[in-house]
Amino acid sequence: MQLETYVRENEARFLEELNAFLRIPSISTLPEHTPDVRRAAQYVAARLTEAGLENVEIIATEKHPLVYGDWLHAPGKPTVLCYGHYDVQPPDPLELWRTPPFEPTIRDGNLYARGSADDKGQMYMHIKAVESLRALHGGRLPLNVKFLIEGEEEVGGWSIAKYVPPHKEKLKADVALVSDTALYAEGIPTLCIGLRGLVYTEVECSGPARDLHSGLYGGAVPNAVYGLIEVLAKAKNADGVIQIPGIYDEVEAPAPAELESWKSLPFDEGEFLKKEVGSTQLTGEPGYSVLERTWARPTMEVHGIAGGFTAAGAKTVIPARATAKVSFRLTPKQDPDKVIAAFRDFLAANTPAGTKLELRVLSSGPAIVVNPNHPAIAVAARVFARALGRPTVFTRSGGSIPIVGDFATHLGIPTVLMGFGLPDDGLHSPNEKYNLKNYYTGILTIAEFFEEYGA
Amino acid sequence: MQLETYVRENEARFLEELNAFLRIPSISTLPEHTPDVRRAAQYVAARLTEAGLENVEIIATEKHPLVYGDWLHAPGKPTVLCYGHYDVQPPDPLELWRTPPFEPTIRDGNLYARGSADDKGQMYMHIKAVESLRALHGGRLPLNVKFLIEGEEEVGGWSIAKYVPPHKEKLKADVALVSDTALYAEGIPTLCIGLRGLVYTEVECSGPARDLHSGLYGGAVPNAVYGLIEVLAKAKNADGVIQIPGIYDEVEAPAPAELESWKSLPFDEGEFLKKEVGSTQLTGEPGYSVLERTWARPTMEVHGIAGGFTAAGAKTVIPARATAKVSFRLTPKQDPDKVIAAFRDFLAANTPAGTKLELRVLSSGPAIVVNPNHPAIAVAARVFARALGRPTVFTRSGGSIPIVGDFATHLGIPTVLMGFGLPDDGLHSPNEKYNLKNYYTGILTIAEFFEEYGA
Repeated sequence: MQLETYVRENEARFLEELNAFLRIPSISTLPEHTPDVRRAAQYVAARLTEAGLENVEIIATEKHPLVYGDWLHAPGKPTVLCYGHYDVQPPDPLELWRTPPFEPTIRDGNLYARGSADDKGQMYMHIKAVESLRALHGGRLPLNVKFLIEGEEEVGGWSIAKYVPPHKEKLKADVALVSDTALYAEGIPTLCIGLRGLVYTEVECSGPARDLHSGLYGGAVPNAVYGLIEVLAKAKNADGVIQIPGIYDEVEAPAPAELESWKSLPFDEGEFLKKEVGSTQLTGEPGYSVLERTWARPTMEVHGIAGGFTAAGAKTVIPARATAKVSFRLTPKQDPDKVIAAFRDFLAANTPAGTKLELRVLSSGPAIVVNPNHPAIAVAARVFARALGRPTVFTRSGGSIPIVGDFATHLGIPTVLMGFGLPDDGLHSPNEKYNLKNYYTGILTIAEFFEEYGA
Repeated sequence: MQLETYVRENEARFLEELNAFLRIPSISTLPEHTPDVRRAAQYVAARLTEAGLENVEIIATEKHPLVYGDWLHAPGKPTVLCYGHYDVQPPDPLELWRTPPFEPTIRDGNLYARGSADDKGQMYMHIKAVESLRALHGGRLPLNVKFLIEGEEEVGGWSIAKYVPPHKEKLKADVALVSDTALYAEGIPTLCIGLRGLVYTEVECSGPARDLHSGLYGGAVPNAVYGLIEVLAKAKNADGVIQIPGIYDEVEAPAPAELESWKSLPFDEGEFLKKEVGSTQLTGEPGYSVLERTWARPTMEVHGIAGGFTAAGAKTVIPARATAKVSFRLTPKQDPDKVIAAFRDFLAANTPAGTKLELRVLSSGPAIVVNPNHPAIAVAARVFARALGRPTVFTRSGGSIPIVGDFATHLGIPTVLMGFGLPDDGLHSPNEKYNLKNYYTGILTIAEFFEEYGA
């Protein structure tokens, strides 16, 4: 039997297993979902065992567990370290979901659920690729595989970052494989060879010792919400250029050939604005294309802000406290620690009169770039091109997968970023979806990658 | 029996009745407390009836009821329209209360509860003053009184503002009496002769059609939270001077004599900062004293802001929506409608790229000033001075009591603003309190005001 036939004949079960996985609300950032996160780890471990992986273990960490498994009976063949994450982002705002986020629902060939694309649906393809190969090869695989699946990707990946350095021998491999990215566009085989880094922080502003009556005190006392507004507004200009001194010092432009290749990618700003963004216009640094701005330029975003009275109606307080979530995306060569220091200095230099600012760093990781000439990347490009029937393109992503940098630093290996999502999958948004055809194609393509890389 | 003796002998009951009133969480801005607001109205109506008021009625409105009652059997004598409000501000942040906001608790001679000073404890003095006089004068009063008590003061007073103009005959009076202000300082008899106006709004900013992944889209799309930050930051400079064109056009300085008298008031900036404000420094327009800044200058404050992800942990979204509560305090001569128009123009002229701004006006009312030479004010000043043993001072307040402007406009009467609160009562803040001695002194002083104004 051929791989393709096996995958096709097992589609219904592959979907059913993924649905069961998606029904577990493994939201890593919300403490009340800790038991669900653990349940998701157990689900992954059980499926790894069923697929024939050995030495499967749930590794306790200070927060959410890691799941490990391996199959190492192909001496002389390369070893692939498969990485993915079983945790998901919170689903809010809930009222914008057409169907419940943890009740997977199919509409128009797409599977709607939180985590369907990011990353449960994608990491599960690796397991099903292993299963398929073993089924066809009498329980054997064409190469060695190790799986390391984490439950903290959406909250900074602290535990896996801590686990990798002292376990170099255990995790030793020739290449890592990650499916947590998207096709450049439907039908275009895409290998991502660059990811931005991320520094995620909270800024808290305090003003008066308590909330004060704005009539009696207004005009003479600091306002914590306004103080936070003032300082954050100074951090970018109207064009989105970051105004924090030193922040662009280490930013390097991509190589001319890479920039040139991006120009040949199909991209329609009008469609992008209308179908994906939905605002009145696009924004950002003048002089850079959208791909450059999102793949190769640092950015600063405020993800949320809260302070004072925000219920319905009117309350006339001068708030004592306000908090914002602020992050920076980083380009290769930018040192996260230097960015944090620059932001800290900026806050200190721009603290509004009468207020105090506190900076808390929640996570940080550098950007990464992968050499497209590595043998595993070359095999992946060939297999991918054959699967979708057109040449593979090399892109970057503006997102961040900090573990890819850790694999490079501590294990000395590159990562094949072979994702099957689509740009409009709505990661981190309401109505996240994953295209079912891509799910099955992904299982097949990954199995073929294992086969040819092991040949 | 003398008034003073009657009040002293009934202190325990006066406190008990007030406590029962304070236990009703009549938070007018929160829909879930609508039944409590109604209960508070019924409580007021019952106490008015017990005190001997006639024609007591609970007047239904589109939102919270008004309570009316009168005693009009002193022909040839003046009529006083007693106003107060039985609704309160929300108690949040709850965790900062030392004792529950709706469980009145005495500590160090102060009664701690939401509404103790603003305004339940103060409006209730009027009722007990009437009771005391009738008890001593065989069921008669030295003048005519009408009571009009509302339940929407903390949400803009829309219903009473609508009720007054068509009920001029019913509400006809020589002067209004309001106890919703504070002594300038403990022991200083104070009549407030000026109040700032208030325009209270919500500003909503929208950017992308849905929350977007900040890695994939960051750098090319607008952020609703940041857009709101940008536009609001432009509305004031670092000194707190409002930057909205035209906003100061109609602002007039107080008369030199009034300014001069403020200079003679005891005021210690260090104490004010340390005991009342608790921030690192005071702020506000250069060139004006704290009293000028809070009593006689317009201000803009952001009372609350919310948008994006604000729970614990990290979520990397570019928020689609954000909202802020923004108000302006106005000085005499400033037209609220002109201020609203100026703010609307400012928002339109400063809408950040890619965002949309929407302005919703929740309430508005002009500032007021009262002539200190009016006979009722003169009597009030004399009685007040005698009660506390030192000359009465004339002040303004930075707060707003919109109904006072309506009484002037539609009934053609001035208002005696005779309040017995203290500057550190914590109105709208956690641990709001009312000094019990002032409660009893207030009942006595108001009774004496009725007696002498009727003489």
